[in-house]
Formats: sequence, structure tokens, C-alpha cells
Amino acid sequence: MHQTQRQQTADLLKARGLDRALFAHAHSVTWLTGFVAPVQTGTNLFSGGPPLVWYDGGQFTLIVQDVHAADAAAFAPPDCALLSYRSYTTERPITSAENLADVLRSVVKLSGASAGKVGMERQWLTAFLHDALREALSDQVEIVPIDGWLAPLRAIKTDDELALLRRNFALCDIGQAAARQATRPGVREIDVWVAAESAINQAAGYRVPLGNDCVVGYRSPNNVGGWPLDYELHPGDSLIVDISAFPGGYWSDGCATYYAGEPTLRQQALHRVVREALEYGISLVRPGIVARDLDRRIREFIEQAGYPAHTHHTGHGVGVSGHEAPRIVPYSDDVLQAGMVIMLEPGIYFPGETGVRLEDGLLITSDGVEVLTRHDKGW
Amino acid sequence: MHQTQRQQTADLLKARGLDRALFAHAHSVTWLTGFVAPVQTGTNLFSGGPPLVWYDGGQFTLIVQDVHAADAAAFAPPDCALLSYRSYTTERPITSAENLADVLRSVVKLSGASAGKVGMERQWLTAFLHDALREALSDQVEIVPIDGWLAPLRAIKTDDELALLRRNFALCDIGQAAARQATRPGVREIDVWVAAESAINQAAGYRVPLGNDCVVGYRSPNNVGGWPLDYELHPGDSLIVDISAFPGGYWSDGCATYYAGEPTLRQQALHRVVREALEYGISLVRPGIVARDLDRRIREFIEQAGYPAHTHHTGHGVGVSGHEAPRIVPYSDDVLQAGMVIMLEPGIYFPGETGVRLEDGLLITSDGVEVLTRHDKGW
Repeated sequence: MHQTQRQQTADLLKARGLDRALFAHAHSVTWLTGFVAPVQTGTNLFSGGPPLVWYDGGQFTLIVQDVHAADAAAFAPPDCALLSYRSYTTERPITSAENLADVLRSVVKLSGASAGKVGMERQWLTAFLHDALREALSDQVEIVPIDGWLAPLRAIKTDDELALLRRNFALCDIGQAAARQATRPGVREIDVWVAAESAINQAAGYRVPLGNDCVVGYRSPNNVGGWPLDYELHPGDSLIVDISAFPGGYWSDGCATYYAGEPTLRQQALHRVVREALEYGISLVRPGIVARDLDRRIREFIEQAGYPAHTHHTGHGVGVSGHEAPRIVPYSDDVLQAGMVIMLEPGIYFPGETGVRLEDGLLITSDGVEVLTRHDKGW
Repeated sequence: MHQTQRQQTADLLKARGLDRALFAHAHSVTWLTGFVAPVQTGTNLFSGGPPLVWYDGGQFTLIVQDVHAADAAAFAPPDCALLSYRSYTTERPITSAENLADVLRSVVKLSGASAGKVGMERQWLTAFLHDALREALSDQVEIVPIDGWLAPLRAIKTDDELALLRRNFALCDIGQAAARQATRPGVREIDVWVAAESAINQAAGYRVPLGNDCVVGYRSPNNVGGWPLDYELHPGDSLIVDISAFPGGYWSDGCATYYAGEPTLRQQALHRVVREALEYGISLVRPGIVARDLDRRIREFIEQAGYPAHTHHTGHGVGVSGHEAPRIVPYSDDVLQAGMVIMLEPGIYFPGETGVRLEDGLLITSDGVEVLTRHDKGW
């Protein structure tokens, strides 16, 4: 798995004069290897840090804590080796950070780098591990920051990634259907969310990390986003349900707006405009369109209908990160290309009163788009 | 909030000759300030890193990304200032890591440290931020690693922390009751877990991060722990449900074992021994007992009943981390003290067949214990 990603990375590093590199961002590790450490409970208490990938002249090495070694082995084909370090033990104090540093020192020393440049994701590697790396390298070696270098490569999806994304979008759709069914007067935001989360976990057969928002329209000052709380839905309340699911290393996303009982005439008008704005946006997406033009035209569509457009991004790429290149925002010169997967999410918000947002996931094809989300965006 | 913790920390740093320090571990930040950044979805995509706490001669400064500033303000009383940095924006590329580094450089420069020592949690601070800090300090300043220094302080809970822990243990109990009710032939591990998670989230009124295990006895080679999967329960199967909940910065924990239908006579015998081992352990806990003695006596109790004792820890402290000092393990010389909150969790496992574990949370009082978990530990 992920040999295409590794080959692209090797080519990129070579083109920029780097024979060696250390990847420390969780998203880089997943993209390069397919391995994903559990999130959901925060810092891994027994690990020395997140997983790392060391690159040395065509050979990648994934470094994980021992308890993840069996899972990680599935992701370590010939061009990617696997090393692990001792973490949890009851026999002595846990020194997993030191153990990880030892493994890193060993593998770097083996490379025998005595000069030249070594790339490093310095915004994510800890100072402690940076020292270990520095110690293992000759003083003649220059360290080059490579944070963000993989982002443009990640934007174009492989067939394997598309297969994962399709499955993940289907999970989001399942959550949306459950949320729609659960929305009615008398329930709370958290109740709707629990319905969606339960449906997703039961369909997947395991615990799926989830974002994003579940907010009733009368929230103020912010009814755009936020995690569900115990706000109760009254008749005529709108509820924005924006679910992203992260099963197996790749995110998906999607947003719909539901109503407790019948939407008011005003809500129906807002909903219609947002839906038309989304459909209009989808009709514009094809290879060659510039992100900021797409952004501007969707905002203008809403404004021309007489409403204030959303102030958040109009869309974003999705992959090993929930928000990645290309960003569909006012400043972006990114040119959309076939193989990108992007979200579009126009909205209209009147904080304290009501809000509407609808979001679809799109695969950009050679001549247009394929819509990957299939949830009902009616009211 | 958390002024006691900050005062203790200031005293500790002073005693060790440090006037300044940077705390970079999420657990340190929560313990020092009460502020907790959301977990559950992994890396915060728009942040420059986790929150930081800078200490300078009696004054603490919490540094968070802008979208958390309102939440963090509640945790910044007079002896703790609050700074934030710009993260998400649609107007230009996101440079939150650089923005955080700028804020860190400014606050460190303000301290005017021209000599002496500065403490740093180097196992968690990134190399990128370490550079920013180093740049802001005179070359005469020595950086001293302080990873783990707060652990002994954290082990003794304040009254405010105990109030939080009590509430959190009650949430775990709610989850256990729901899991017990959901366990029956024909359901899967994930279904039982969903029932527990739903009950906890609905009781809390918000999304509560949860660990730990939900594993049927016939799992092999590991039926001790793991997240729920789609293994189906058949009549007579045992199911270990170990739930830790993390609402508002402090963990809680607890484990029970349920059966699909009636437990077999052998399971009843195992269950009885584990329950007696737990009760025996609780009877031993008081200020002054050494962790390894407690560990040994509980293991011996199980072995004397003719069964293999658990190979995992017998227990652990719980607080801003789900596993913290004191560890109840064979090597530990830690002396239990009043004000500590520990878990005890004896178990017996026959992988591929069945397993039993029961766990209680205990507040060590001046003359014994108060049991903080109240879930049913019968079969």
C-alpha cells in the first residue's frame, strides 16, 4: 500500500536535492504508509510520540510503538521497513520517549550521512527527538525544513485512496440519515448527534472518529459551527449537522440542515438559495477552474439572491487531513485538477435566529465532477 | 481555578533554581490552568500546536489559538495571563505555527532573561518552537529538561479536582449500567459500546472522549484489551467493558465483566475470585502502603486461588492523564498517600476462551479509602 505516494515523495526529495528526510506529522505518516495511530483519546499515554517515517535514498522506514507493530506490519511492504520501540511495561518505569530516540538514532546512524542535507518536518518533531537526530548526524549535515512539502502531492488522490474515500462518504451519509430522522421538537443537539454517531459506529463495526458541527439556529453569537451541546430544539428550529468521519486514516465530510417540524417560509427560502448555490458551484467545478474564482462565484450567487454569504471557506480538499489543499477561499490561486476531492459548503447564517449550510464531496474528473456524498439535502 | 497547582509549581521551580519554564505537554497545561483543548479528532488542523504555558517568576501565561481564547479566558485569573495567536482564516494561507512562534518569542523576550536556567518540557515542545524560544533567549541561558517534574504533584488531588473526578466517575457508572443492559446473545462488541457511549454523552449533554476496552472472551491472542469490533456475542460469552471518560480535562475509569446469558460455572468461579481480589485490594489501601506490595498481594491472592494473575498493571493513578502516578506495578516504591486517586483492576484471562476484569476507583483518605465508582460488579 501507498507505494505510489512513496515514489512521488522520493522523486520530490531527489528533485530538491535531499537524500534523506524525517517525516513527523501524523498526516504525512498516514499518507506515506497507510498507518494511522488511534486518535479520539488524545495523547497516547504510553508512546514516546507519534509515529515517524525516516527516508533514506529510496528506502522508507516506519517507526511505531511496539503495541502498534502488528497493525503497522500490514503497511510495510518491501520499499517500507518497520521498526518499533518498547512502550508499556509493568517491569520498570516507562521510558518510551527515550526508547524512540534510541531507535531514531540507530536508523539515522545506519544511513551514514556525513554531509549534504536532511529534510525534517520541524513543526511537528519534538525538540527531544530533534536532538537525537542531530546527535546521529555529522555536523556537516544541514537540516532543511520540509513542513508542508507533501500537501500538493496529497491533493491528487490515487485509486486506492478514492476507494477509501467512497466508503467513508457512505458512512457520513448513514450518519446524516440518522440525524434527519432524530431531529424533532423536544430533542437536544446532543441527542441528534448520538443518533448519527451510533448509526455510523454500528455500520462500520468499530469506533469511528467524528467531527464537526451540530448547532441549532438560535445559538448566538456563533450558529455556524460547534460541537453538540444540550440546546433543545423547539418547533421551527433549524439544525446544522456537519459530520466528518475518519475511519482508517482518511476523512470524509458532509453537511445538511434539518428542521424541528416544518421550516418557516423564510427558512425554506434560505434553504432553497443555499441548495441552488451548491448546485451552481458543482456545475462550475472542472479541471482548470481557479479556486478563488469558484469561491467568488458561489458567494456572489448567494449575495445576488439578497442574502449575506458565508464568511467561512467555500470549500476544501479532504484526505488524510479533514481540511487540506486545495482550499476554496478568496486568496487561493490553486487550479483544480482531475483526481482532487473537494468539499463545497455554502451557507447563510442569522445568528440567534437560524442558519442553513449544505455540503457535498466532489471528485474532480477529466470533464467535470462526480458527487461522492449522497445524503438528502432537502428539508 | 488551579491556583493551588500553580503555586505548587512555582515553589517546585524555585526550589530547583528555575525562574522561568515552558510547559508543552497537554496534561501539564490542563493541570496548571484547567484549560483543555478538544481531543477526539486528532491533530488540530488549524492550530500551530498544542497549548503552552510560560512561567516567569510567579506569573503564568497560557497561550492558545484564537478560537479557544474565549474558553481559555475562564481559566485565566490574576496569576495566569492569557495570550492567543491567529489560526484559521480565509484571507490568506494559514500560518498558525509561525504565529504561535511569534507570540512565544514575544513573551519570552519580555522576560528579559539574560542568564540562568529556563525549564522546558522538551519531549513535547516541537523543534520549531524550541528554536523560537532559543532565539528569544540570551546564549547565556541554560535550558533544563523538566519533563515529568509535575507528575508527583499531580498525584495528590485538590478538592476541586476531586469534585470533577466524582462527576466523571458517575458518568462511567452510567455507561457501565447501559453496557450491562445491552449485553446479550446476538449483539456485537460495538453495539454494547454504542449503548454505553450514547448513555454517557446524553447524560453529560456533550461529547465525552472515551477509552478503553470492550472485548469478548473468545478473542485471541489478546482478550485483555482493545477497542470494540464487530465480534458477535454468543450465549455464555464474557465481555470485558472498561470505560474511561474524559469530560473537562480529567479522566475517570472503571471496568466490569458481563455475560451474554448466564455465565458458566467456570466463569462464575473466575468472577468470584476477581471480585474477592478487588475487595481484598481495597481493604489493603491506606496511606503508607507501598505500591509494589499492594500489587504483589493482589496478584498472590489470585494465584493462591489457583489462577494466573493479570500480567498488566494492578492499578494506576488517574487525573489529567488516564494513567499517572502512582503506578501499582511490581517495581514501584511509591508510597500511597491521602488525596491520591487510584484504580485497582485485577483480572484473569484465558485468551480464546474467557476473561474477567473488575475495576474500582479509590480516593485514599487519612485512614483508608472511599470507593468512587459505584457500578455493579456482579455478573
